[in-house]
Amino acid sequence: MPPRPPAEIGAPLAEIETPALVIDLDLFERNLATMAEAVASSSVRLRPHAKAHKCPEIALRQMAMGAVGVCCQKVDEAEVFAAAGIPDILLTNEVVDPRKLRRLAALSQTARIGLCVDGPEQVARLATALEGMSARLDVLVEIDVGQGRCGLPVGPQLVDLARAIGAVPGLTFAGLQAYHGKAQHLRDPQARRAAIGHAVERARIAKSMLEGAGIPCPLVTGAGTGTFALELTSGLYTELQPGSYALMDADYARNAFDGPVFAHALTLHATVISTAVPGQAVLDVGYKGAAVDSGPPVPVSPSTEVLGMSDEHTLLRQPEGRPLAVGDRVILLPGHVDPTVNLHDWFVGVREGRVEALWPISARGAGL
Amino acid sequence: MPPRPPAEIGAPLAEIETPALVIDLDLFERNLATMAEAVASSSVRLRPHAKAHKCPEIALRQMAMGAVGVCCQKVDEAEVFAAAGIPDILLTNEVVDPRKLRRLAALSQTARIGLCVDGPEQVARLATALEGMSARLDVLVEIDVGQGRCGLPVGPQLVDLARAIGAVPGLTFAGLQAYHGKAQHLRDPQARRAAIGHAVERARIAKSMLEGAGIPCPLVTGAGTGTFALELTSGLYTELQPGSYALMDADYARNAFDGPVFAHALTLHATVISTAVPGQAVLDVGYKGAAVDSGPPVPVSPSTEVLGMSDEHTLLRQPEGRPLAVGDRVILLPGHVDPTVNLHDWFVGVREGRVEALWPISARGAGL
Repeated sequence: MPPRPPAEIGAPLAEIETPALVIDLDLFERNLATMAEAVASSSVRLRPHAKAHKCPEIALRQMAMGAVGVCCQKVDEAEVFAAAGIPDILLTNEVVDPRKLRRLAALSQTARIGLCVDGPEQVARLATALEGMSARLDVLVEIDVGQGRCGLPVGPQLVDLARAIGAVPGLTFAGLQAYHGKAQHLRDPQARRAAIGHAVERARIAKSMLEGAGIPCPLVTGAGTGTFALELTSGLYTELQPGSYALMDADYARNAFDGPVFAHALTLHATVISTAVPGQAVLDVGYKGAAVDSGPPVPVSPSTEVLGMSDEHTLLRQPEGRPLAVGDRVILLPGHVDPTVNLHDWFVGVREGRVEALWPISARGAGL
Repeated sequence: MPPRPPAEIGAPLAEIETPALVIDLDLFERNLATMAEAVASSSVRLRPHAKAHKCPEIALRQMAMGAVGVCCQKVDEAEVFAAAGIPDILLTNEVVDPRKLRRLAALSQTARIGLCVDGPEQVARLATALEGMSARLDVLVEIDVGQGRCGLPVGPQLVDLARAIGAVPGLTFAGLQAYHGKAQHLRDPQARRAAIGHAVERARIAKSMLEGAGIPCPLVTGAGTGTFALELTSGLYTELQPGSYALMDADYARNAFDGPVFAHALTLHATVISTAVPGQAVLDVGYKGAAVDSGPPVPVSPSTEVLGMSDEHTLLRQPEGRPLAVGDRVILLPGHVDPTVNLHDWFVGVREGRVEALWPISARGAGL
């Protein structure tokens, strides 16, 4: 069990202990509906990325709205979501530790499990780790479609890799992981369109190579909140992996969107603990409650400027006219949803000014 | 209980699952001894900051080496360390939520508890929250000695504040919190000496004002790993609050020291999961396992360069001559110890190439 939650069911907003991650349930449900509607008219499946929320309560609601399963990044996460009843989990990542591979194999007895490889070494490790186990794992070949992180460059060697997968008992070559992460945060829709155009072209060539060699490629999967509308209409992608859309963050707020727009359902509530130094107010949250890899959290109520942050504190410029006092609440948009969520143990779900739900972030940490 | 640890007692280094925070126990013990020796010849007390390690096993070892108690930043942390048997805990922070104040008051039945204020509003909140409770809290006035975060500017109003504290049943004015956080990371010892010279001067004036008004000021506390040798010999500070010295990090590695030097006892172990994109190796740890507020973690074995990071990955430039392969281990120095530790549930203690200890980071999170 995670530690004590920061609120009680039925409490008004002012009685949420801070720092706390608060979900506006109306906005959250609207985001889930917006995504469900966007994919409903196509045959493309939605497999939301659970690394963004790490919360089985959210995953189950995504499943209820039509998702076919979830994506995870870590074996620890897959175990949490499988235990919560998610029947179909894709690790959109390479896994190379033999103990982790055996844990995945064991998990494949209770849920459908997939993972990625981008070279023969990972297949060899799978073959060794799975000896003597009755595993049934889907294996995708990750290709580099512009991200430049993991992923095989598209070329004939991916045919060899797909064949190598198929030759290992218990493994099935399932298709292509073709995610362009960098494209998600290009601010201009035109730039995102160009980047995903390139990604689709690379993935199309890869699929053609496989099919030319007589290897079926049922799955082409990728996409994030910034670009999913493009992969959706590509005629090539069969699954989408967006994660942030359910909650959103300040980084995505900097994107211009010409497709479906998602609301900022997630905020970080904090309290002013000091105003002793003139001109500033100090909040009770710092690096340990708000990730800063995409910039500091953005104060929206009241709207003001972050002057600095440290482990335990955020310094705000005192708003003009109506200065913040000790004990006042400040509401911020997290800079980046995924690593901020990973710092907390609970979501506090609110509706009409009251706490309606307390959802444990069960896969918080879960890094192995 | 935290999740499963990343290793088993007795395992060789290569069998630690990654990402993992690994403590070299020889270096860690040497750091504790170095600090104990530094303070042994004086009457200044050591109260290490537990926010840096969040680990009762470490706090108990610091107590065994002569520490008088620990510092914390959060009530949640204080509860964890009190439950582990630490008898004397100072919150070096302002606490303003009435529920948190009542939890502290309850905790004061089993441990000596102190906290900070920097204005009359916090004292008024303490008075209201504690009504009807039999609390016994030490209250320090935090003064701004150059940090510019929390802390009352030094002036006559601190006499009024000390009097206001003394007038509340259950509260005792205990002294001055005079921490200069910014000074810790000034690279040049000369610059740190100047900054702490200023801090000592401010604190001396503050103490004189209080004593001039007939208010005893038994405690002057502050200092961090970067400057503690200066506060130690100031003739004014009575307690020191360093935290990082036990483990250290890459940010402190950038300081030039002319006093005691501490070893890098803490490393982050990671595994190469992909080398598919030419020229780079991808590690199985990103923002969720390594804080980046003070820069990315620094690869020390092998020594190479971080090309980029994302939520779940770190991209390394392939070392010259001997490229990293899938499955290889990489050892990194965390960029900043406190927020990195807060991302993990376990320390893996190693000696002579074997896992000797598994210490839960029990106050991981613990943000309320």
